[in-house]
Amino acid sequence: MTHSVDPVLIVGSMAFDDLELPTGRFDDVIGGAATYAAYAASLYAPAQIVAVVGEDFPQSTLEDLSRRGVDTAGVARASGKTFRWAGRYSKNLASRETLDTQLNVFADFEPTLPETFRDTPWVLLGNIHPALQLAVLDQTRAPRFVAADTMNFWIEGERDALMKVLERIDLLVINDEELRQLADIHNIQRAARAVLGMGPKRLIVKRGEYGAMLFDNDRIFFSPAYPLEDEVDPTGAGDTFAGALVGSLAAAGGVSHLGLRRAVVNAATVASYCVEGVGTAKLGRLHRSQLSERIDSLRSLVQCTD
Amino acid sequence: MTHSVDPVLIVGSMAFDDLELPTGRFDDVIGGAATYAAYAASLYAPAQIVAVVGEDFPQSTLEDLSRRGVDTAGVARASGKTFRWAGRYSKNLASRETLDTQLNVFADFEPTLPETFRDTPWVLLGNIHPALQLAVLDQTRAPRFVAADTMNFWIEGERDALMKVLERIDLLVINDEELRQLADIHNIQRAARAVLGMGPKRLIVKRGEYGAMLFDNDRIFFSPAYPLEDEVDPTGAGDTFAGALVGSLAAAGGVSHLGLRRAVVNAATVASYCVEGVGTAKLGRLHRSQLSERIDSLRSLVQCTD
Repeated sequence: MTHSVDPVLIVGSMAFDDLELPTGRFDDVIGGAATYAAYAASLYAPAQIVAVVGEDFPQSTLEDLSRRGVDTAGVARASGKTFRWAGRYSKNLASRETLDTQLNVFADFEPTLPETFRDTPWVLLGNIHPALQLAVLDQTRAPRFVAADTMNFWIEGERDALMKVLERIDLLVINDEELRQLADIHNIQRAARAVLGMGPKRLIVKRGEYGAMLFDNDRIFFSPAYPLEDEVDPTGAGDTFAGALVGSLAAAGGVSHLGLRRAVVNAATVASYCVEGVGTAKLGRLHRSQLSERIDSLRSLVQCTD
Repeated sequence: MTHSVDPVLIVGSMAFDDLELPTGRFDDVIGGAATYAAYAASLYAPAQIVAVVGEDFPQSTLEDLSRRGVDTAGVARASGKTFRWAGRYSKNLASRETLDTQLNVFADFEPTLPETFRDTPWVLLGNIHPALQLAVLDQTRAPRFVAADTMNFWIEGERDALMKVLERIDLLVINDEELRQLADIHNIQRAARAVLGMGPKRLIVKRGEYGAMLFDNDRIFFSPAYPLEDEVDPTGAGDTFAGALVGSLAAAGGVSHLGLRRAVVNAATVASYCVEGVGTAKLGRLHRSQLSERIDSLRSLVQCTD
């Protein structure tokens, strides 16, 4: 990363996760959408986090993020406990169930952007209440590009607020189930067109091990997922994807169609590393120089020419 | 197709299907793995069918296949009724249930190759009892390339015979669920390696709307499915894929790694047309000249360069 790359503002959760994985039980794993996204974005661009943590959240994690070029000035430390999620994955990691959610300090989260964050050109609204996503947008000054994530919980329960978000973003990044739910249409292409009609200029559909699809002005791009043999923990892979994607666009300095395609491939690659470790164990130690080999593999996976 | 293209021998079922689709109920639809595969292969190469039909099977279908360059000399007409399958698809076509299976004349099927079929260099063993697949292989004389399909029913109940088939084939074409079942491994790459260890030189994993993966000497190729907006009937899409694949290889006159990749893209394209009509309605009227536009789209779907 060079100083000429504009920063990426990321808002979302920072959390403790208690994970029951096929490989064992892991408690107090550092997680949260903003954490994953910031580690991922920082591979490509300076990042800024807006989030809230409790008294129990390790200062060492914030310091580690800082060393990676993440500005944590927007991480508020509130009295009380950090957001906590507990989940159990199926033996083959293909599904998971939520065992417990404790909002804790996240329940009263009112994102406040430090003055130095308000002119940040690249914005990633992580998966939080759409009203909070709007509150963040209202504090920004004419960002160049806004991407947002959301989830079934908000699609079901906060549709009106979510619609207001969709009208104001350049890119929506969601998974295929969420897309189908949001559009109430099963066919991916038709659902994508319906959701694009709700406002976002572009749409990326994450399909887990099946890859990702970009819908951009009637053009579709497809990237396979990197074919992993040793999947360990899918937690945060989607947030990692989104963070790497926006970071990659910031590094490119613009949003051409080709740049978006490359950003999707980069994002799929970074997400593959995330899945290979518990929590951010592998993602948090990743360096950009490690990526090129896997990016080449991913591209050659679809090559039909000599 | 030119006269210099060697023929493809296809063994499998010819059938009537009673289909309950979201678009309506369709009875007595001409189907069967060999029928779909022969229509598909005939786009690229002369095809030969070995199958059995009952007295009720329309001669007009055999004549239509002949007009498309399919030699039906190996289609035995037995006294009794043709194999019949009845199935109901879910509203979004994502799943189906078998309502009824009547083997009829297929119960006593003993595939017999006409003398003129025994030297055919390209062989596709459709999804029939592995003992019958072996019986066909025993009647061939040193085929150049043998591909086989199978299904969960044989993987569960006829594993020993199936293992003998796997030792004698160049390519296994199955879907991802069958791969996982055959290997008893969930991870696709690991499962693929395990199945390659059972004998087949190469493996293609069909993943429906998610595309197809080719495993060839430690190299993996991925082709997305053609993104359809109007899926009508997925019946036979897998057989169509296999038929177009082997036909495409025959047309190429060899099995290079690049040729295999291109054959997978061709197969995915032809299969996409199959899904757009009930039964063989669309596939049976397809011409090779129609394919290039969709093949180009499929390739551009994964392009990351100008």
